[in-house]
Amino acid sequence: MGKIGVAVIGATGIVGQRMVNMLTKHPWFDLQVITASDKSVGKKYKNATKWVISAEPPSEVKEYAVLETDPKVVEHEGNNIKIVFSAIPSQIAREIEPKFASEGFAVSSNASAYRMDPTVPLVIPEVNPDHLKLIDIQKELKGWDGFIITDPNCSTIILAIPLKPLLDNFGLERVYVSTMQAISGAGLSGIFAMSIFDNVIPYISGEEEKMETEPLKILGSLKNKNIEKANFTISASCHRVTTLEGHLEAIFASLKRECTIEEVKNVLRAFKGIAQKYSLPSAPKNPIIVREEIDRPQPRLDRDAENGMAITVGRIRADKSNPRGIKFLTLGHNTIRGAAGATILNAELLVKMNYV
Amino acid sequence: MGKIGVAVIGATGIVGQRMVNMLTKHPWFDLQVITASDKSVGKKYKNATKWVISAEPPSEVKEYAVLETDPKVVEHEGNNIKIVFSAIPSQIAREIEPKFASEGFAVSSNASAYRMDPTVPLVIPEVNPDHLKLIDIQKELKGWDGFIITDPNCSTIILAIPLKPLLDNFGLERVYVSTMQAISGAGLSGIFAMSIFDNVIPYISGEEEKMETEPLKILGSLKNKNIEKANFTISASCHRVTTLEGHLEAIFASLKRECTIEEVKNVLRAFKGIAQKYSLPSAPKNPIIVREEIDRPQPRLDRDAENGMAITVGRIRADKSNPRGIKFLTLGHNTIRGAAGATILNAELLVKMNYV
Amino acid sequence: MGKIGVAVIGATGIVGQRMVNMLTKHPWFDLQVITASDKSVGKKYKNATKWVISAEPPSEVKEYAVLETDPKVVEHEGNNIKIVFSAIPSQIAREIEPKFASEGFAVSSNASAYRMDPTVPLVIPEVNPDHLKLIDIQKELKGWDGFIITDPNCSTIILAIPLKPLLDNFGLERVYVSTMQAISGAGLSGIFAMSIFDNVIPYISGEEEKMETEPLKILGSLKNKNIEKANFTISASCHRVTTLEGHLEAIFASLKRECTIEEVKNVLRAFKGIAQKYSLPSAPKNPIIVREEIDRPQPRLDRDAENGMAITVGRIRADKSNPRGIKFLTLGHNTIRGAAGATILNAELLVKMNYV
Amino acid sequence: MGKIGVAVIGATGIVGQRMVNMLTKHPWFDLQVITASDKSVGKKYKNATKWVISAEPPSEVKEYAVLETDPKVVEHEGNNIKIVFSAIPSQIAREIEPKFASEGFAVSSNASAYRMDPTVPLVIPEVNPDHLKLIDIQKELKGWDGFIITDPNCSTIILAIPLKPLLDNFGLERVYVSTMQAISGAGLSGIFAMSIFDNVIPYISGEEEKMETEPLKILGSLKNKNIEKANFTISASCHRVTTLEGHLEAIFASLKRECTIEEVKNVLRAFKGIAQKYSLPSAPKNPIIVREEIDRPQPRLDRDAENGMAITVGRIRADKSNPRGIKFLTLGHNTIRGAAGATILNAELLVKMNYV
Repeated sequence: MGKIGVAVIGATGIVGQRMVNMLTKHPWFDLQVITASDKSVGKKYKNATKWVISAEPPSEVKEYAVLETDPKVVEHEGNNIKIVFSAIPSQIAREIEPKFASEGFAVSSNASAYRMDPTVPLVIPEVNPDHLKLIDIQKELKGWDGFIITDPNCSTIILAIPLKPLLDNFGLERVYVSTMQAISGAGLSGIFAMSIFDNVIPYISGEEEKMETEPLKILGSLKNKNIEKANFTISASCHRVTTLEGHLEAIFASLKRECTIEEVKNVLRAFKGIAQKYSLPSAPKNPIIVREEIDRPQPRLDRDAENGMAITVGRIRADKSNPRGIKFLTLGHNTIRGAAGATILNAELLVKMNYV
Repeated sequence: MGKIGVAVIGATGIVGQRMVNMLTKHPWFDLQVITASDKSVGKKYKNATKWVISAEPPSEVKEYAVLETDPKVVEHEGNNIKIVFSAIPSQIAREIEPKFASEGFAVSSNASAYRMDPTVPLVIPEVNPDHLKLIDIQKELKGWDGFIITDPNCSTIILAIPLKPLLDNFGLERVYVSTMQAISGAGLSGIFAMSIFDNVIPYISGEEEKMETEPLKILGSLKNKNIEKANFTISASCHRVTTLEGHLEAIFASLKRECTIEEVKNVLRAFKGIAQKYSLPSAPKNPIIVREEIDRPQPRLDRDAENGMAITVGRIRADKSNPRGIKFLTLGHNTIRGAAGATILNAELLVKMNYV
Repeated sequence: MGKIGVAVIGATGIVGQRMVNMLTKHPWFDLQVITASDKSVGKKYKNATKWVISAEPPSEVKEYAVLETDPKVVEHEGNNIKIVFSAIPSQIAREIEPKFASEGFAVSSNASAYRMDPTVPLVIPEVNPDHLKLIDIQKELKGWDGFIITDPNCSTIILAIPLKPLLDNFGLERVYVSTMQAISGAGLSGIFAMSIFDNVIPYISGEEEKMETEPLKILGSLKNKNIEKANFTISASCHRVTTLEGHLEAIFASLKRECTIEEVKNVLRAFKGIAQKYSLPSAPKNPIIVREEIDRPQPRLDRDAENGMAITVGRIRADKSNPRGIKFLTLGHNTIRGAAGATILNAELLVKMNYV
Repeated sequence: MGKIGVAVIGATGIVGQRMVNMLTKHPWFDLQVITASDKSVGKKYKNATKWVISAEPPSEVKEYAVLETDPKVVEHEGNNIKIVFSAIPSQIAREIEPKFASEGFAVSSNASAYRMDPTVPLVIPEVNPDHLKLIDIQKELKGWDGFIITDPNCSTIILAIPLKPLLDNFGLERVYVSTMQAISGAGLSGIFAMSIFDNVIPYISGEEEKMETEPLKILGSLKNKNIEKANFTISASCHRVTTLEGHLEAIFASLKRECTIEEVKNVLRAFKGIAQKYSLPSAPKNPIIVREEIDRPQPRLDRDAENGMAITVGRIRADKSNPRGIKFLTLGHNTIRGAAGATILNAELLVKMNYV
């Protein structure tokens, strides 16, 4: 089988850069087209991008011309492109992604625009691969040849993955989550140095709402062509700290039944999903790494585990204020597992399940 | 009235430095004696100290000889010293503070050693000044001429002050608190740059236990010569981030009765205590500053409010997951309001209430 | 004598904020008018400004309306304003400052637009107060009722002050300077966190040119209505590091005659200027503080010396590669001594010398 | 050919960790033995080490027992070990390295103890491979079966590599260098967070002396069994900034003859050495990468170029104060190219040249 042609739309931001970086070495996908906003169109990718991952973009793509974000252009300039990875801002994604879907592309999006649309799968391969069944409903209802699937908000993914085995094994009643998020999550120009230096910014626009709603869709059940939301509550407080990459989240969870800390560790460690079963190329061997050290996970040390695709959980302990309460920390690489890698893993799942 | 002679024991660490700094300009207290551990004894204070507040120690004290931490020495070298401010490590405080108390000194301590001792007041002047009545019980039981009073852990103070008006006005059921604490809280040599740079350290030894127990004593009631603990639960998760000063804490509180966010803001803004009533020299005019901006409090901007003695609260909002739930952030200067300033304000209260 | 009415134009940036902050407590000046760019006009100052010095602007000015940067408006809204402090961007200053000067205002500017204009004094009160004599020439040539004086670039001031006594006492042949400059020097929105975190940015637009030319004008002599430039060379390399405030500069200087390190320290320590002689309100008692510690000056510890108005010099040592060479470090608070405080001290000198 | 057995002595510090990390994947070397100081002996490597490169030590070595730093132990526990990589502190290296050499090991050391010993090669493979000829002189004079070779100080390497083609092509007269060095250079526990946060520490013990002397030996010529030092001067000023890895150095160089900036770029770009000629496994394809962007090299972006083994040079420009002067910045990964990678590349050269 030849490689599948793919495009990255919105390729100059941090998430776009991560997508490009991961796709240049991808065993299944052939990155043929890169698009960005008007001010970049016509430039070479290396000149249009303030590349922040390393010294410069991969040699395979740095000379690429940046094209317009238009399905006709992508179709014309690419060679049988089937998948479009979207890293464009949400308000633009709202207009543009449907155009790509209606032209027959499979859109694997990191934008928030359609995450909560009832016909759009909001997918983490290890957690809710069956939600892909919404694709047929979506195509029928929208009358599109292609379709859109989305990954969750970066902080949501890092939370939802460890919640899945907890929900399945012990039930969940209430979750409080307080985040310490990296500056890369705000994009290349999202935060001024003068604002965050020697500081914490205790507000991230829209983040708490996303964390309080998205996991309930992801952990919900597909019933009668609809996602029935999971039945527990999440309350979030989101904060930006001075780390480069890696969102760290402190969780207080109230389970439905009592259990030992050993049981909790065991179900987290044992957790695997379809991504592992099928050994998808970007899937971590262990979606959750449980660390025993008293002071882990730490962003700088743990964010790159399994190429940035594993979630690291640590400090799992009883909440003495609540017999069914546990506390722990969860950490993931926000622009890999929480964004670019998530859309790529989703696309790998699409291929494996024959949606592409 | 002449000034009251005071000493600082353990004066070379960060909290000791802050004490010295605040006492050199104090209207009531005359700093006469500075002590530290053996390796500093005999040196000039400026040479014994790695001063981190500014370019060098205040000119009034920089030439002082550092003395031994011994009540006889303090008595002999000072001139009628009545109050001893203790910034010595807790395990040493356990041995030494009683010696000072038995020699007749009033010890205002920042050490944790005796905080939970049932005869020792754990005091925030704005919150529980009546707990000072334990002093007479303490003196009688221990047979001391002097006594020990303590301030709470730095994170505890920043939490307990806003909890006080909430408890009094709405009742409290459950509190979850997730902290983002400054590096100064670990002392001069507590954290290596290689450990915390581009990182968060999600563990602070003993901190969660302190935050979960101390506020219940502080917010408890003195009944029959005993403190009856406050009747709600606290669960804490403590984390170190890269800020210099200022502990920021995200709070999820479940109140006893429903109320509006405006009511919450009003009771926090209206809150005053005896420190304000008597205009104690180190008391902030407003113990709690409520900010309306969407992204405050911030450590760098808000920690110095009212000379570092005010607590700043912000982002007060409803917790949609709980009809009686609110969320907010609280911030204070950990080495001033949370440590040195706390012991000094406590001593001012002692003077005002005629315990010294 | 009543206070002299003053205005700050361009008051919302970091330097404007520092000017406002210093002027609200000023013994000679009465800050009556604040102006900024169109998008701020009509707002209250507290709302127009992203205040970064502390929790919020001083209460004296936070309710001020921000006015248009227009001499007619300043004249009309103020009450006999005589001095205008300019913190506006250089390209705008080029248009606007002459309008203020021609309307009769004394403009004390931090902008670079007119620094190298042969009729405009580029003044550091301790170094070249006699250059103020250019004012009369300027007024005559330009036909203005008022005039413009300028302060040097922030890095220049921190270099030029210690060079002055070296030049006077030993002569200077060649100076190499390598800077480590704080992020505040780039303004509120000058640097993205993603750009500088865990990084050094080894380029600051225009900075090296300023450092290589401005000191030669400042240290030059007024002869026949012209500044004859000082006769030595400066070569600069400028770099941005992650400190909040305080530019640190490593100097390699080749003197005209050999001398001992003690001699160098002595002339630096003994250095005083007219600002000290007249005890101008913002003048530091010691313009140069010489520190003996092996690892000083340090930005965080030394930038605030004498309210941020003293320069701290340290590590003065022989350059073994050159018999007439010395090496040292110089440090100053870039937005106080290097900017806002410099314009205010210049204005104080204007008043003292009866130019206002 | 089977792999050559090697040991790392002093394997728990940052440089030791980097050595272990690079050797676990090495095509020629088989890491058999790890040693460290007494407090680590007998522990598993993963427990003895505060690993800071990633989540944990490579799986190949993390269960290794840490052995005593003793040639007999290394001999006994290893299987025909020929090369010992030394990352032990210099004062201990002074005692221990000769013991290993006398037992017949080839010691490739990162310690400074023997760098300036006239019989010990101080080698950068791209610069002075012929200095290995000192090995025979050393063995004869010391009466050892084995020998010691050393790599230069981290800052020295980053300076000496670009100086080599400049010296060969244009001659060198005078070099001034001002460094901005990463915290990793001080080791795991070398700098407290409270010391360097929001700060620059303008002093690094012994560093300036090393930078002023080592390059003259490296760039010197082997004549009559002695190294005749290179005939130009270096003056250094060394400073620690808050970056994790990557030393950045600002250079002011006075050449022997005038040349254009293009010529300088060309000779730097064209520079190759024996490491490239023989394609040694750890050798970068391009020892010097010349960047044209106005603001490069930058530590975070450029330190990892060619697996951290390339030096990146940028901002090459004329020094207007000196007709034969040029200015530029040079940057390298201090714990890879500047330390661990340097000792490994040196050992690869030893093998290639049949010294092992």
